[in-house]
Amino acid sequence: MSGTEESFVVGLIGEGITASLTPPMHEREADRQGLRYVYRPVDLTRLGRPGSDVGDLLRWGRDLGFNAFNVTHPCKQLVLAELDEVSEDAARLGAVNTVLIRDGKLIGHNTDFSGFSGALAAGLPDAALGSVVQLGVGGAGAAVAYALLKAGTAELTLLDLDPDRAAERAAALAQLFPDRRVTSGTPADLPAVLPGADGLVHATPVGMHSHPGLAVDLDLLDPSQWVADVVYRPVDTELIIGARAKGCRVLDGGRMAVGQAVDAFELITGIRPDAARMLDHFHELIAQGR
Amino acid sequence: MSGTEESFVVGLIGEGITASLTPPMHEREADRQGLRYVYRPVDLTRLGRPGSDVGDLLRWGRDLGFNAFNVTHPCKQLVLAELDEVSEDAARLGAVNTVLIRDGKLIGHNTDFSGFSGALAAGLPDAALGSVVQLGVGGAGAAVAYALLKAGTAELTLLDLDPDRAAERAAALAQLFPDRRVTSGTPADLPAVLPGADGLVHATPVGMHSHPGLAVDLDLLDPSQWVADVVYRPVDTELIIGARAKGCRVLDGGRMAVGQAVDAFELITGIRPDAARMLDHFHELIAQGR
Repeated sequence: MSGTEESFVVGLIGEGITASLTPPMHEREADRQGLRYVYRPVDLTRLGRPGSDVGDLLRWGRDLGFNAFNVTHPCKQLVLAELDEVSEDAARLGAVNTVLIRDGKLIGHNTDFSGFSGALAAGLPDAALGSVVQLGVGGAGAAVAYALLKAGTAELTLLDLDPDRAAERAAALAQLFPDRRVTSGTPADLPAVLPGADGLVHATPVGMHSHPGLAVDLDLLDPSQWVADVVYRPVDTELIIGARAKGCRVLDGGRMAVGQAVDAFELITGIRPDAARMLDHFHELIAQGR
Repeated sequence: MSGTEESFVVGLIGEGITASLTPPMHEREADRQGLRYVYRPVDLTRLGRPGSDVGDLLRWGRDLGFNAFNVTHPCKQLVLAELDEVSEDAARLGAVNTVLIRDGKLIGHNTDFSGFSGALAAGLPDAALGSVVQLGVGGAGAAVAYALLKAGTAELTLLDLDPDRAAERAAALAQLFPDRRVTSGTPADLPAVLPGADGLVHATPVGMHSHPGLAVDLDLLDPSQWVADVVYRPVDTELIIGARAKGCRVLDGGRMAVGQAVDAFELITGIRPDAARMLDHFHELIAQGR
């Protein structure tokens, strides 16, 4: 690398993100691509700053020479009001996780949904997507549901412990995709809606190291169905292990975590990274207990 | 480089510094040392910000993960009020050009003086420093005068077109180094004070590409004297060329420009860089018309 080439300073703004794997994933891939690249966590919890500071942080970062930021909880919606431009998908989804700084302008994108789309295509190629049941409609769930509809899902059933939240999300998505059937319910509806679906997406915190357990009765699964989990710590959740044992094809949460980083890296640098290499590195980091 | 290693984001705050050679010097040397390192110019002129914003820029940089800043005109004095700690030399000199960020604290240093000291030792080894005449007492001049006295100069004569400024600087330095003789005057005094001095330091803008010319009558120089110039664009000023032709030993301004970067790099990274390699790179950049 010579000092005259383009270089990159990127940040991640969010609460409790000091241990995020996204910074080392970006930096390692940048090294492999021969790019000068530093990715800094900007942890609101450590700084004692509220999520509403995201606009100030972005603008000061712009003035100090940052090229881009990823933003995460609790800033993905808050950041919308601070941007000069927003991509069509991010605006429709109502959430931004990547902000590019170009010619002094802040431009929002969403690679959570596109990352899941890429993960789905790479990890479950040729999977039928016509009819999908999704459990959990929080931030990650919203992006996943949007990705499924973009990918062609005709019947999407959204289940959440909070039936109002599920109904609101379903109504919003039905408006964006008027030719699809988006319905809602609670996890109690699983026995009724899961049989006959092509696949199941799990998008609640259950199964994380901090929330161990299983949100789905494995007896409801048929080996012909695929199962995707957004939880990636651990990569092999009880759901992924159980579904695999039943003979289902599975997509673990690591794929989506890497997918958002792959797409963000490409937006930031203009270079398509090696997604398989980034996935390997992700597994290496997880194995190191990162 | 792996993502788990220490990495560096450094900025340079000042007016009209977009074309500064310091960023590429730091980045190239960091590459040679195997460090992940990005150095960003933060040009107040481009941003339309006043020098008094330096404190805000430092604090936001701290929160966004910067490791350090260099600061230059017009912030070297302004920055003092914004710091948590200041090195003894920077406090005595009343000017800071390097701010380290450690454990959330802003700590000021001055590598303009130490860089000149190192340049003098490397570029004019064994030069007699007992009696020196210095032309120009602005920002760079103040650092150079301080370095000379620290290096042992017993008689320092400061000349400036503004005799009050020269007298004030002489008085301030005499107070810091009470056992030395620091006097002042104007360039008109050169014929009286230069004969017999060990060396001459030129620290005015005359000789820069934007201020071509010669501030010293070359006939006044004796081949036994050394001549140092702080101007480095061009490296070979009319003064340096003329003094060399007279047979004087010379120290061009590139040495000081590199010296401040060498010392700043060491403060920031804890690694002593290869000063000769950085000087070679500096000349390469100058030859490229940077």
